[in-house]
Amino acid sequence: MREEESMIQQLKEWLREGDFAKVRKELEPLRSADIADCMLEMEPKEVLLVFSILPKELSAEVFSHFSASEKKHLVEAFTDEETLDLLLHMQMDDRVDLLEELPANLVNRLLSLTEPSLRQEINMYLGYDEESAGGVMTSEFVAIRKDLTITEALETFRTSSYARVSSNELFVTDECWTLEGVVSLKTLLLSPTEAKVAEVMDGHYVSTTTSTDQEAVAKLFMKYDLRAMPVTDNDQRLVGVITVDDVMDVVVQEQTEDMQKMAAMTPSELPYLEQNIWSLSKHRIGWLMILMVTATITGGIISSYEDVLSQTVALAIFIPMLMDTGGNAGAQSSTLLIRSIALGQVEFKDFFKVLWKELRVGLLCGLVLALLNTIRILMISDAPLAVAIVVNISIVATVVFSKVLGGILPILSDKVGLDPAMMTGPLITTVVDACALLIYFALASLLL
Amino acid sequence: MREEESMIQQLKEWLREGDFAKVRKELEPLRSADIADCMLEMEPKEVLLVFSILPKELSAEVFSHFSASEKKHLVEAFTDEETLDLLLHMQMDDRVDLLEELPANLVNRLLSLTEPSLRQEINMYLGYDEESAGGVMTSEFVAIRKDLTITEALETFRTSSYARVSSNELFVTDECWTLEGVVSLKTLLLSPTEAKVAEVMDGHYVSTTTSTDQEAVAKLFMKYDLRAMPVTDNDQRLVGVITVDDVMDVVVQEQTEDMQKMAAMTPSELPYLEQNIWSLSKHRIGWLMILMVTATITGGIISSYEDVLSQTVALAIFIPMLMDTGGNAGAQSSTLLIRSIALGQVEFKDFFKVLWKELRVGLLCGLVLALLNTIRILMISDAPLAVAIVVNISIVATVVFSKVLGGILPILSDKVGLDPAMMTGPLITTVVDACALLIYFALASLLL
Repeated sequence: MREEESMIQQLKEWLREGDFAKVRKELEPLRSADIADCMLEMEPKEVLLVFSILPKELSAEVFSHFSASEKKHLVEAFTDEETLDLLLHMQMDDRVDLLEELPANLVNRLLSLTEPSLRQEINMYLGYDEESAGGVMTSEFVAIRKDLTITEALETFRTSSYARVSSNELFVTDECWTLEGVVSLKTLLLSPTEAKVAEVMDGHYVSTTTSTDQEAVAKLFMKYDLRAMPVTDNDQRLVGVITVDDVMDVVVQEQTEDMQKMAAMTPSELPYLEQNIWSLSKHRIGWLMILMVTATITGGIISSYEDVLSQTVALAIFIPMLMDTGGNAGAQSSTLLIRSIALGQVEFKDFFKVLWKELRVGLLCGLVLALLNTIRILMISDAPLAVAIVVNISIVATVVFSKVLGGILPILSDKVGLDPAMMTGPLITTVVDACALLIYFALASLLL
Repeated sequence: MREEESMIQQLKEWLREGDFAKVRKELEPLRSADIADCMLEMEPKEVLLVFSILPKELSAEVFSHFSASEKKHLVEAFTDEETLDLLLHMQMDDRVDLLEELPANLVNRLLSLTEPSLRQEINMYLGYDEESAGGVMTSEFVAIRKDLTITEALETFRTSSYARVSSNELFVTDECWTLEGVVSLKTLLLSPTEAKVAEVMDGHYVSTTTSTDQEAVAKLFMKYDLRAMPVTDNDQRLVGVITVDDVMDVVVQEQTEDMQKMAAMTPSELPYLEQNIWSLSKHRIGWLMILMVTATITGGIISSYEDVLSQTVALAIFIPMLMDTGGNAGAQSSTLLIRSIALGQVEFKDFFKVLWKELRVGLLCGLVLALLNTIRILMISDAPLAVAIVVNISIVATVVFSKVLGGILPILSDKVGLDPAMMTGPLITTVVDACALLIYFALASLLL
């Protein structure tokens, strides 16, 4: 940390003195992510200066590490020509990501300045759904023909303009760009030089099509421990490649979305600190309103038992505990099941297994909690024994009910094509609360 | 799916007929994950048979795809010699994972059958914390000396016994195994053949030590888009390599743990369906008990306002709505912040930024909810106006309070070294509930 700060001070001094060669020499050997970190500590003017000093490819790479809002600020300070220059030095996937984040009129201006063939390619990429394989893939890969020898294949790789940026896998096609196999540089190096590519390539490769959802792609990467995956159009022609580093970002992004949905928010990709209060509120208020309105059902139940309650006001004391316990028990089950479904560990065929498991777990947990609660009531509360009995039977019933509901609702919603992550704590709590109160007051009117 | 089923039927027939060559020919070209999928559909006897038919390396690879309990069942059916044979053909990281899952007496029997040098190495691996870099790394990598030429380096790689299983990166050391750099096969192929490795290697590599937590390793992989990372001991000597596919598993595993903690469970690595009801209950009951007992604080608050309540029983009707809304609002903020902290987007220095944001978001959401609630009460409820006023002021206060608490508690707990994921829905709900009721009843005694 110390070291980094003194380096930044040194860089700033060189920038002030106009000693740009030293700045370049200092930064060039670093990793682009570290250069980006340094630049975050600098003034906007210094950042622009550093961008003009670094080699274009490196600038473009550093730029892709910034967050959406930082990118926007920088682009506003660039001239159109500078932005275009940066764009042209980016890798295709970073380029498309940036264009998706910029205002439409600027994108149009920039595209009108590019070569027609590149413009066409960029437009094709912009047409893919951001969360599909087409939106994640890159066009910078090396393809070879299957009838080459190993020596020829290695030579093709060496002379390819994408050699430096491509993954360690080469993609094998026939003369019509139909994908036939995958072969790694490692395999080429370990094979006899006069062998044909077709003999050593992996014909049992795993591929996907442009329209496949990115989450499905991520699952394939994990199942087969892949480093890169070819993407084809519907005619099995190779159009792009997805690399493992982009998939890792997808995994993290999908997990963030799931968590946000589970906490009753509409998901947002933007980092927390970059969202203003309108954006933050917008993602939260919808579910808060729906859940508040549905929570009035529980109010209605209490209101319909108002005479029972006015006779034994002590009943009200246990309402929060009963509701919280039911909600917590349901949230535990639904979280476990939502995650298990997301990881492909639980499917619809396991419905009755889950039901039976949750029924017994609920009974076990409910009985332990009721026992603990009985001891507590006997020791420190002066509530009448009848109330204690009503409370404890309600606890067991509520925990069993909420565990079962939390277990099966995610499976059912997955089955009918809804996102299981919606069937979570807040929503289940509302249903469980209503049922807990119904059981509680029904027992109370019966026994008191 | 159809296709797969008919293939499995065909395989089973060949196994019955003793036509093992056909089975081998059918399965060998497939990916190990797919062979494992097939075997899951077979009888235990058939699975054992297939293991004996497949080449040993492939068997070992297929075996590593099974879940912990499936592995245990299989090992029970194997003789010690068969298990040992399988172990010896596994990659080091899979081997150590398996040994960690087997019963201790079997592990000792197996280790006593292995070569002393291998036994020593395995024991070293077993000594690393499962969740540290040492526990995730593999010993199967190719290291080269920095004074070799490119041609010599490629030749060293070709003749290395780990060439087939290693990653596409080679690790450069001096004569004392001190790590000096990393170089990819790609770079070697693109460099002039007479250059020295030292000239083309990346000396600004990212490395880690055996004791580093796996979550920190995963963050480095994502920050620098790595495919493989060298692991050194405290003297900077190369001892292992972590590959990106293992890191992907770490990311998913850590995420599952966070989700479980956020739903008030003690985390468990085992898949849901493999846990019996005792194990499932054990991970849930602790927090349920703690939360139930703390929820009685809210009961105490109600009980101390029993006379206010018995005068206006209508107050009880709004308790569930108020509690649910507060809990939901707090869960939203805490989830966002827990995730932001986990991704490194929010740190302690952002404390006041978050506080100020959540204060305003809470006020905005609270006011909108209070407005909606006023309309609803005026339209469909016969609650007295004074009660409506008390309810709505309480809503705004509760939402603001829970948003702020949900925002700052994860940051504070991270600062003092607690896991922010504990500061989540259930725990915050309990605190918020208590405060919501205090505000509610205080207002009620004042205004009614």
